[in-house]
This record gives sequence, structure tokens and C-alpha cells, in this order.
Amino acid sequence: MTKYYLLTPGPTQIPPEVALKEALPIIHHRTNEFATIYRNVVEGLRNVFLTKNEVYILAASGTGAMETAVVNLLSPGDKLIVASCGNFGNRWIKIAQGYGLKVISICVEWGKVVKPAEIEEALKNNPDVKAVYTTFTETSTGVTNDIRTIGEIVSKTDAVLVVDAISGLVSQEFRTDEWKVDLTISGSQKGFMLAPGLAFITLSDKAWKLVETSKLPKFYFDIKKYKKSYVTNETPFTPPVTLVVALEESIKLINKRGLENIWNDCKLLAKAARAGMTALGLKLFGEVSCEVVTSASVPTDIGGKIVKILREKYGVSIAGGQGHLKGKIIRFAHMGYVGKADLLVGFACLEMVLVELGMKIEKGKAVAAAEEVLLKTK
Amino acid sequence: MTKYYLLTPGPTQIPPEVALKEALPIIHHRTNEFATIYRNVVEGLRNVFLTKNEVYILAASGTGAMETAVVNLLSPGDKLIVASCGNFGNRWIKIAQGYGLKVISICVEWGKVVKPAEIEEALKNNPDVKAVYTTFTETSTGVTNDIRTIGEIVSKTDAVLVVDAISGLVSQEFRTDEWKVDLTISGSQKGFMLAPGLAFITLSDKAWKLVETSKLPKFYFDIKKYKKSYVTNETPFTPPVTLVVALEESIKLINKRGLENIWNDCKLLAKAARAGMTALGLKLFGEVSCEVVTSASVPTDIGGKIVKILREKYGVSIAGGQGHLKGKIIRFAHMGYVGKADLLVGFACLEMVLVELGMKIEKGKAVAAAEEVLLKTK
Repeated sequence: MTKYYLLTPGPTQIPPEVALKEALPIIHHRTNEFATIYRNVVEGLRNVFLTKNEVYILAASGTGAMETAVVNLLSPGDKLIVASCGNFGNRWIKIAQGYGLKVISICVEWGKVVKPAEIEEALKNNPDVKAVYTTFTETSTGVTNDIRTIGEIVSKTDAVLVVDAISGLVSQEFRTDEWKVDLTISGSQKGFMLAPGLAFITLSDKAWKLVETSKLPKFYFDIKKYKKSYVTNETPFTPPVTLVVALEESIKLINKRGLENIWNDCKLLAKAARAGMTALGLKLFGEVSCEVVTSASVPTDIGGKIVKILREKYGVSIAGGQGHLKGKIIRFAHMGYVGKADLLVGFACLEMVLVELGMKIEKGKAVAAAEEVLLKTK
Repeated sequence: MTKYYLLTPGPTQIPPEVALKEALPIIHHRTNEFATIYRNVVEGLRNVFLTKNEVYILAASGTGAMETAVVNLLSPGDKLIVASCGNFGNRWIKIAQGYGLKVISICVEWGKVVKPAEIEEALKNNPDVKAVYTTFTETSTGVTNDIRTIGEIVSKTDAVLVVDAISGLVSQEFRTDEWKVDLTISGSQKGFMLAPGLAFITLSDKAWKLVETSKLPKFYFDIKKYKKSYVTNETPFTPPVTLVVALEESIKLINKRGLENIWNDCKLLAKAARAGMTALGLKLFGEVSCEVVTSASVPTDIGGKIVKILREKYGVSIAGGQGHLKGKIIRFAHMGYVGKADLLVGFACLEMVLVELGMKIEKGKAVAAAEEVLLKTK
């Protein structure tokens, strides 16, 4: 019987109040009862996305919402910019290529952040670009892109700005309307503290204009169908009822704590995590750390073993690197239903694993460094 | 506090053993622990689909699997046959049209079943048809199509046979390989007694050959990605973990009862439901009744009210008609986690509602007729 501590960048831990809702007897989705829940949920989502526009719920992984953001805005032969700094940014490129679109890729080295000036330059050189696709918090490396500045730049052009905020939304300051983001997507399994299975999407008026002219083929992800059903508090296809019911509870918890308080909590945990990593002698990875996951470089001879041993011996799940960063970094998440104590558990066990793997570290030092940060803020 | 009885053709009731699994602490999906569950689940699915081929799990509503069956087999300009006898059959047409394909529609009047001879004729006249799409149990009307005969016909041509078995699989005899079905899809919220959110798909070697040449654009529904991940017991994108964990429990229950016993149970309930409807003086709707839902015509002056009153006054949810059958039929489902007692509850309350709506019926008569059928079989 192993006790598990989930400190991965998705799925994240689910509060018992939310999990239990998933176990309630299922209700039918074409009823007043479900319509009321659905209405509460979409209103709650609008408050979290910080948008005056409608937020639609898809039955899909986050990638499904990414594809929705591509096939509903563009037409065959259209040109788009993808500003990528990691694995999830690159997924925009792959989706767009899958649809035969003309992709201008602005890729920076993994660990760096997207440069707004490069997007500005590319837009100037390509006035026919229809949309700019990028990532808010790139969890494959652990960095945050400056969406506010990018929004300022893109809003001055005819192009729309599309942002994958799957991992960052709820946990880290993100303002859809104020930052002039035309299309934001997110998913249920990160800051929303829910199981995977739901994806969310919201569009500005400027984005809707592109939807009207979009000619890429689609059916399940046809956003017009979702807009039409929204009016009657429905989804066009059978929704994952239990997840929507549980999401209502998650949103209640988010509202109770308050979005800004959650952002502050997450920021504090991130600061403590960075202190912990540094105290272990590990170099922080990433130019501008995000607040949902903390990445650090690890010696490559033991890099592949840390995550495995931590999980198998102590029940603590963190993530390793993806792609060419495999075995080179570890990623410690601290978003959603994670408290200060969880963070300390993670670092205490990480210390033991590093000692076992022969690293010369002082036991208790990472925990102490994290505690120091946490104690400074009440 | 209303006690609900869910007798709708999806979602269906969830056994408590299954529902509770959804409330367990979530686990990460890239772990040995999840891989073991995933392996059990896909093996279980193969036994239910009655196929030697792999079965893939999508995070989507059933319609997502339908789209997957279109975009992975065909290329722009390809010709296909859709044999439709209701709302769900027509969905194949809409998806194919959304992708600009050449659709030969063979639509029969709603309530009738698809004619295998018409498919044979259409295949003869159009030897360039790549695939035939149809529906197993068409729940919008309550009929069963003769998939075995259609499989025999299509297998003699170069075309592949694609069947939507979303509502019928598990509950009613369906044999993917033996009936020569090249691509079968299903979903979690019917016979699998689980919440909606998962869709399933399996392909024959003949279908895989078409996949190799398919040129329709796709990413999230690209079946090759699922095939590749299957080898390591994974899904290409974050799966709805809690639903997969609960599905393992559903499959255990299905195996414990035995597929053929479940088919027999469902057949008996359907027979009892038909007896009940007839005893109420309602004319059964549908040429060849399916075994998952029983449809009957209702007087159009009260048709729109029955479902609403039944639900609001007695907590019993059944379904009304879809499309042009709205207000003209009622649909009483009896698949999945439904027992003899549930069926009797449904008919008893239906009797009360019909009396309230002024129909001249003898109270208790439908229940008695259903009981008589149920008593005949131990």
C-alpha cells in the first residue's frame, strides 16, 4: 500500500470534495438540472478566464482544444506564426502542418522564452498572417511567456492571438480580455483540480470574424456548433456529465479562495521550490520561471533515475524532461490542490533519492530553504 | 429530494462500484500503475468488441470516434456510402459532407431499417466506393440493422464496412470480426455503464490499408498516433484517467456476468418493455426493434408532455423523439445497469402519467404485461 503524492504538471491532485462529485449518480444532460449546472460552470469559467465572452466546453484532451483553435480560424493555404519555446509550442506547428497551412515558426532554444520583438518583426514582414499561436506557461521547460506584451503587439495588426493556457490558467495571472488574447484554451486537469477529459475555449469578436471565413474541414470541433448549443445551456454532443458536475465544485472552491489569492499561493510555492532546488545545488532551468512548475538541471548520469526512484520508493510523482531534455531536467509541479506541506514532502524525499544516487548534498537543506521562503509569508 | 431513475438511451446508470472508482485519488498516466490498468482495459475491450485487433481509447464523445472513422480512412474526393435510418445514421452524412467527400446516401424512412440489398446494389453501381458507413442500433428510432448480412455483402468488395455500435455494443449481440466489420466504434456511456467521455475504435487489416493512403487532414483523431502509443500502453494525449480507471471496474463486471448473459438479459427486458407498451395501447415504433431501447408512438397532443412530467413528478427519465419524431414517440431504454425492477418502476410511473394526461388506460396493465414476460424466464 503506497501513499502517493502527485506533484506532476498534470494531472494534478483532486480535492476530495470534487472527486466525490464524480461518484454521484449520473444525471441526463438534456434536463433543466444539468442546464443549471452547465450555466454555473460556464459562468465560473468566464470569471477564471477573465473574459466577457462565452467559454465553451469540449469533451477532449487539451490537444483537442488546440486543434479546435486551428481548424476554426484558418482556411487552406493560410499563413500563421507559431512562437514556440518547447514541446507544447511545437505542437501548434505539428497541428498546423497536419492541415497543410503555411507556418512561420519562431522557435527559441528550450529553456528560453518567446521574444515578442521577433513576433512583431515577423508580423511586419508578413502582413498576410492570419493568426499568431503561442503558449502561456510552457511546462515542458518551466517558463512563462510575456503574453501581455505579445497581445499588445498582435492587437495592432489584423492577426489574432491564440494562447495555449492549458497549464497556467487559474494558477498564474492570466487575463484574456485585458491582455488582448483573441482565443484562449485550457483544460480540466491542471489549475482546475479535476480529472482530464474536459477542454475549454473562448474567442473574441476578432476571432469570431475569422471563424466566419474559415474553410478548414471540421465537425466534432466545429466551434459554431458549440456556440449554437450554448444558448440552451447544452453541448452539441454528449458531454462528460460527471466531470462537468465535479467542475462546478472545483469552481466553487476557486471562487471561495479567490483567483488572486490562488495566484499568490502559487507564486509563493514556486519561490520556495526555486529555493529548494538551489539549496540542492541544482541549477534552475528556464529563463523566466513559471509559477506552476519548477524545472532544474540534474546530472545526466542520474537524471533518468530520479523520477523513477522517487515514485517507486516514496510514492512521490514529479516529471522528468521531454524530448531532448529527457534525463537532463526534473520538473516539480506546485499548482492546484497542493499545499505547503506537499512541497516539503516532495523536497524531503527528493533529498533522500539524491543521496541514494550518490550526490553530495546536505540532508534537510532543501527543506530548510523552502521553509524559509514559506515562513516569510503568512 | 427527488430519487431519479435513469432510463434514457445514454448516459445510462452507473453501478456504485464503478462510480466510486471515479472518486479515487487520481494517478499519473505515464506510470507502470496506469499502464497495467490500461492494458487490462484494452484487453477487456477486445473481448467485448469480439475482435482480435487492437481497440483504441479516445478522449471524446462518440461523435469524435465517428469523425475518426471518416478522416482516417478517406481522402479528398473519395466516394462513400452511408446507409442511414435515423438521426445517428444521418450524422455520418453530415461528417462526410463537412469533409467535402462524395456521399451516396441510402436513407430509409425513420422507423424502418437499412436494406442490405440496397447497399449491394449501390456497391455494384459504384465500384469506386471506399467505405460503407452505417449504424448498428439506431437509438433515435429504436431499430437494429442487420450488420451480419451487410458485412457479408461489403466483404466481397474492395470497400470497408464501418459501424457505429455506440449504443448497442455490450448489450446486444455484435461480433466485429465474425460479422466482417472493418471498423467498429463505441462509447463509454451506454452498455459500458460508465460516464460519457471515452470513445473506442477498432480497425481490421483491410481498414488499416485505407489508413495508409488516407489524406484527409487530422491530428487529434489521427489513429496512427494511437496505434503507436498502444505499444507502450499509453494514449498519445492525456487520457481521462479517472474514467479509464472506472472502466476497468465496468469491464470486470461485464466479464463476471458474461457477454452472452448480458445479451440475454437485455433481450428479455426489451421483450417485457414491448409487452408493456402494447398493454398501454401504444403502437410499437420501428420495423425491427433493437434490444437497448423500446420506442412507441404516442398521441401527438400529449407526446411532448410525457417525458417532462414523468421526470419532474416521478424522477423517471426516459427520452422523447428526435428531429421530426419530437413529440411523436417515447423511447424507454433498458441497457447497462438496469434490472427488472427498474423496468417495472418505469412502466408503473408511465401509467400514472398517461392517466393524468387523460389517456384511457387500465392502471397496472402495463406492469402486469411486463411481469408476465419477466416471470416466464428465470
